[in-house]
Amino acid sequence: MQALVIDDGIYFDGGYAKPEIKPGEALIKTTLAGICATDLGLLQGYASFSGVPGHEFVGIVVEADNKKIIGQRVVGEINCPCNSCAVCHRGDYNHCPNREALGIRHKNGVFAQYFTLPQANLHIVPSSISDKQAVFTEPLAAALEIIEQIHIAPKDPVLVLGDGRLGILIAQVLALTGCDLVVVGRHPSKWGLLLNKSIKVCLAEDLEEGYSAKVVVDCSGSSQGFNQARKLVRARGSLVLKSTFNSDSLVDLSSLVVDEISVIGSRCGPFGAALRLLASGLVEVEDMICGEFPLEKGVEAMKKAKEKGVLKVLLRP
Amino acid sequence: MQALVIDDGIYFDGGYAKPEIKPGEALIKTTLAGICATDLGLLQGYASFSGVPGHEFVGIVVEADNKKIIGQRVVGEINCPCNSCAVCHRGDYNHCPNREALGIRHKNGVFAQYFTLPQANLHIVPSSISDKQAVFTEPLAAALEIIEQIHIAPKDPVLVLGDGRLGILIAQVLALTGCDLVVVGRHPSKWGLLLNKSIKVCLAEDLEEGYSAKVVVDCSGSSQGFNQARKLVRARGSLVLKSTFNSDSLVDLSSLVVDEISVIGSRCGPFGAALRLLASGLVEVEDMICGEFPLEKGVEAMKKAKEKGVLKVLLRP
Repeated sequence: MQALVIDDGIYFDGGYAKPEIKPGEALIKTTLAGICATDLGLLQGYASFSGVPGHEFVGIVVEADNKKIIGQRVVGEINCPCNSCAVCHRGDYNHCPNREALGIRHKNGVFAQYFTLPQANLHIVPSSISDKQAVFTEPLAAALEIIEQIHIAPKDPVLVLGDGRLGILIAQVLALTGCDLVVVGRHPSKWGLLLNKSIKVCLAEDLEEGYSAKVVVDCSGSSQGFNQARKLVRARGSLVLKSTFNSDSLVDLSSLVVDEISVIGSRCGPFGAALRLLASGLVEVEDMICGEFPLEKGVEAMKKAKEKGVLKVLLRP
Repeated sequence: MQALVIDDGIYFDGGYAKPEIKPGEALIKTTLAGICATDLGLLQGYASFSGVPGHEFVGIVVEADNKKIIGQRVVGEINCPCNSCAVCHRGDYNHCPNREALGIRHKNGVFAQYFTLPQANLHIVPSSISDKQAVFTEPLAAALEIIEQIHIAPKDPVLVLGDGRLGILIAQVLALTGCDLVVVGRHPSKWGLLLNKSIKVCLAEDLEEGYSAKVVVDCSGSSQGFNQARKLVRARGSLVLKSTFNSDSLVDLSSLVVDEISVIGSRCGPFGAALRLLASGLVEVEDMICGEFPLEKGVEAMKKAKEKGVLKVLLRP
């Protein structure tokens, strides 16, 4: 089958072995896949991954024990837990220390014609949601994880640092709380969707002097983002971290104590809620698509996804 | 009056000017004062403080507008807010950016015969509480701040890293929740009070292989404590920071994201609750006292407080 492969760089392989399903898994034919910052990070060495990357998808089940799901259009959660350790037994499947993660950790991903996932990870996509919407389910779920973890109230001043793919999804989700939201970005060319939704967005230098937020979400994707976000969060506030990168950061821990800041790491989120918000149209995603490439042009697609001002780039195997 | 003074080192001054009260303040005669890690930190340059240090006290009001409190035995909150900024207006007085902090920031402290505090900061000490108990009100309140900030439930595995003054108070407070608590320390000579209360305590190397806690409180007082505490907190767990020190730390922020850890800075806490726990005897403090010095021997007292195995050292002006 066709696949993109990371192995000291990234290349297209027209004859990659088609995966075989393990007990409990389904074989899925990829309809559409999305490129995200983590995929670009893998190329920089994040998570020391080699194999087929990709974890944002919508596809069709072609093989599974559960015959009812064959032929169904699905999206899927990316963490594959062992189901037998203490962490799984307490229900924290996404944090199983033995987990595989689709296209990130010990498991080939979706930048290929076929891939496998446990049937338990799959969510059937309602017919009212298009493929181009459904492929955003995974990052939208990650955005929703923030409001799974902390309560954001309508009166709260909230700042999202970063106007990239994830920042725009997070801003749309947080705006649903009615909070006093501002997005701080660097690329006005990306701001159309936010402005259309009446979400405030500006450059950092255009924030009011002395502005601080009760909640700051750092999805800047850079190791410098933390210290910028820290300066923008007020005493007793929360700083939510959504970015992963490949280096340690120098942090003034004493200032977190003195100002009683909560720093909250946030990763994967609820797929069911993401599908509901896509079906209702409360979160809009199709305007974020900046290009669609066939798999054999996948290397070019990855380059495109890295360009300034580019939001979501899709692959169609 | 007599006072200890920090000014490029620390010295005893037998003729320091007696403070005068500003509007709304009370003049207090120090009965007993306690030396804490922050006082020792000030000597290392923390907060760039010069003047009279000290913020743990019990004393007698000798002068105040409110005649009813004159002669009363009091303890007092250490933060003196401006009462007029936006932070004060939202009720976060302890975080007022213009605040003075008793013996820490722009305001002389209690290692003197007399000092001043706003009347609004004072709490009258019930007669059932001894002076030697009351002098622990401030650090006990700081320990209680943890359960003001996060919910610790009876089934939670909880670890306190540090067997110093604050660690022992925190352990006593957290044990009241019924949680599955262990204190990790380095000085078995300090463990008597904990063991008497049936609180588990051990060396780090004696923890069960692979142990992790839902909540880890770092009160180790060192910049290395963070990374040790980080390794002991489980995915989706909370790492509470209680220590301040004078340097930045290298932190793997991405691992906080992947494991969805919450890092929670924690500082000053509720005095009313601290007085209730002292009055009820649920928290025991007098056994922590390792020495009492007159003010003229204050420099010696500070040295004593720094010694390994020493818990609370008191000054009696």
